[in-house]
Amino acid sequence: MTARPSYRIASIPGDGIGPEVVSAAIKVVEKLTKKLNTFDINFDHIPWGTAHYKQTGSYVTGNALDTLRNYDASLFGAVGAPDVPDHISLWGLLLAIRGPLQLYANVRPVRTFPGTKCPLNTATEGIDWMLVRENSEGEYAGQGGRSHVGQQWEAATEVALFTRVGIERIMRFAFEMAQSRPRKLLTVVTKSNSMRNGMVLWDEVAASVAKDFPDVTWDKMLVDAMTVRMVAKPQSIDTIVGTNLHMDILSDLAAALAGSIGVAPSSNLDPTRKNPSLFEPVHGSAFDITGKGVANPVATFWSAAEMLIWLGEKDAAAKMMGCVERVCAAGILTPDLGGTSDTQGVVDAVCLEVEK
Amino acid sequence: MTARPSYRIASIPGDGIGPEVVSAAIKVVEKLTKKLNTFDINFDHIPWGTAHYKQTGSYVTGNALDTLRNYDASLFGAVGAPDVPDHISLWGLLLAIRGPLQLYANVRPVRTFPGTKCPLNTATEGIDWMLVRENSEGEYAGQGGRSHVGQQWEAATEVALFTRVGIERIMRFAFEMAQSRPRKLLTVVTKSNSMRNGMVLWDEVAASVAKDFPDVTWDKMLVDAMTVRMVAKPQSIDTIVGTNLHMDILSDLAAALAGSIGVAPSSNLDPTRKNPSLFEPVHGSAFDITGKGVANPVATFWSAAEMLIWLGEKDAAAKMMGCVERVCAAGILTPDLGGTSDTQGVVDAVCLEVEK
Ligand SMILES: CC(C)[C@H](C(=O)O)[C@@H](O)C(=O)O
Ligand SMILES: CC(C)[C@H](C(=O)O)[C@@H](O)C(=O)O
Repeated sequence: MTARPSYRIASIPGDGIGPEVVSAAIKVVEKLTKKLNTFDINFDHIPWGTAHYKQTGSYVTGNALDTLRNYDASLFGAVGAPDVPDHISLWGLLLAIRGPLQLYANVRPVRTFPGTKCPLNTATEGIDWMLVRENSEGEYAGQGGRSHVGQQWEAATEVALFTRVGIERIMRFAFEMAQSRPRKLLTVVTKSNSMRNGMVLWDEVAASVAKDFPDVTWDKMLVDAMTVRMVAKPQSIDTIVGTNLHMDILSDLAAALAGSIGVAPSSNLDPTRKNPSLFEPVHGSAFDITGKGVANPVATFWSAAEMLIWLGEKDAAAKMMGCVERVCAAGILTPDLGGTSDTQGVVDAVCLEVEK
Repeated sequence: MTARPSYRIASIPGDGIGPEVVSAAIKVVEKLTKKLNTFDINFDHIPWGTAHYKQTGSYVTGNALDTLRNYDASLFGAVGAPDVPDHISLWGLLLAIRGPLQLYANVRPVRTFPGTKCPLNTATEGIDWMLVRENSEGEYAGQGGRSHVGQQWEAATEVALFTRVGIERIMRFAFEMAQSRPRKLLTVVTKSNSMRNGMVLWDEVAASVAKDFPDVTWDKMLVDAMTVRMVAKPQSIDTIVGTNLHMDILSDLAAALAGSIGVAPSSNLDPTRKNPSLFEPVHGSAFDITGKGVANPVATFWSAAEMLIWLGEKDAAAKMMGCVERVCAAGILTPDLGGTSDTQGVVDAVCLEVEK
């Protein structure tokens, strides 16, 4: 007899619509867990974010990394507030976790979701891509500085730092991801024509890792040309891997081309499983609709389902996504998708599906 | 009586389809000049490119910047060949000119052109944007390096270098550009949430330059979010300004969304007019179709027309573009636009229009 699995999750709702969408997702996951009755899951509320920063001068309490290591995973909402510079809030919380906790694989599935419309008439069957973003170094290494601040001759740098180890591990992850998908297609995105150091190293590592995956068909593409391909030949794409910044840009574009950034999930994974992975919707804090009760919870549902898969609960995740998709297909949608439902309405409808 | 204007142009066809499209454009410009008979223009052939590199070890002869300073402008084709690493060819020629010659404003008009179809069903009336790219520094400063090459602990940097002067001059240029257009709308693109130095300086300079342009409505947008806006709300956009890399990416995306990268022109301007500006199609060398006689010459026609405007020959440019647009609207198009014409067919049709 195996012990009944039990998971401890750090819930970090954060700012803006974060609390609304995270509590929506927790309700659905708890309903599902009760219904299935095959594992336990407990969410601890962790009050990090801009309110915490305003009270204490810090976005987090104590050593955030050590705190998170007590959990099996984290479910994250959003961070950022209109009255704090973005780089303070982001580096105070999210970017203080992703890199330092070695959550090096940011995985972003993108597909045309039931209830959303693909705005591209080159993709009449919709889009189904898997985006893999290097999440621990590169343009987000946090390096650089400003000199002669405020002088006319002021100069500033942003330093992208790449390591062979960092590139190799994400490349291997991406090839495995491509290998696990039916089309076994991978595109490696770089910008090695104008950037001659870290980007050339990316090209070299890609070519060497590719040798271990003879069954994966791969090609290399410059990031600018990749945007053209995404628009003009969407069906030629399956899995994509690239740097922290390049894939930040391409994943937003991909979600928009698929139909809505409002449903896009993301997983920040430590594939070695030494550290707990973090799951979050891509959309951010969206202060314009905060507190109105109309935030779209689907991206967080999907992120929570990815978390369940990561924890080993594949069937539960499949059931959850099935329910979410049926609700969306039935037109129970928030206003951002052209619907008239509020967040609670979507939650109730999904919970009803779970009960069926 | 004013003297009849006379212009000397450096023609640098370069690699791939560069020679085909540049000679096509020269034919049209010469036909037009003869017809109008109000100014003279002479093209000197400058044989820089990969063949030159293979013979001499250098992409250029002597001091390229001094050579170009003998001309009123340059008309450039493309650079890059399958058997030379891209970073060698690009930095051997194009990137050795743009920055060092202080051609700091890369201007890229993007619009849905007669004969092309906008693939977005969010933009049924097509697209008409003006993209302004910083062209002398930032991510293309050419800085960075590799250490411990080939070792497992290899590390490499790509250093983006920004200066207040560099940002201020392109920002001023962009605000003036926005001011000259009917909608007087400008979006400043940065990534100052994750990048805390040069990108924050961009934000600060934008806010300060904006004070001098009270009649321009401007906003700020993160580069990732900008891709979403381009797809989802194309009509909310008019003029955009951003860094060398960000606008490299966004200008390719914009051209694809408008209908075809094959018609996209660009101007590399020194707005102080100390140095001759350089005009080039965006498409690149396109080796897959080189020598087949089917390259689309429209991007180079349009680039040459922008050159005529820059030289002061607005009427000639307007006439030239009118002829090109009529030919495209009549369906005389190369295969990349779904047509059956070859390059020569398009040239002949445009020359016939010029004669009318
Ligand atoms: C919030 C921000 C720092 C973040 C990023 O740029 O990585 C976001 O855009 C994302 O894509 O997760
Ligand atoms: C050829 C290449 C260096 C160039 C760039 O990246 O600037 C091209 O993509 C462009 O947009 O002009």
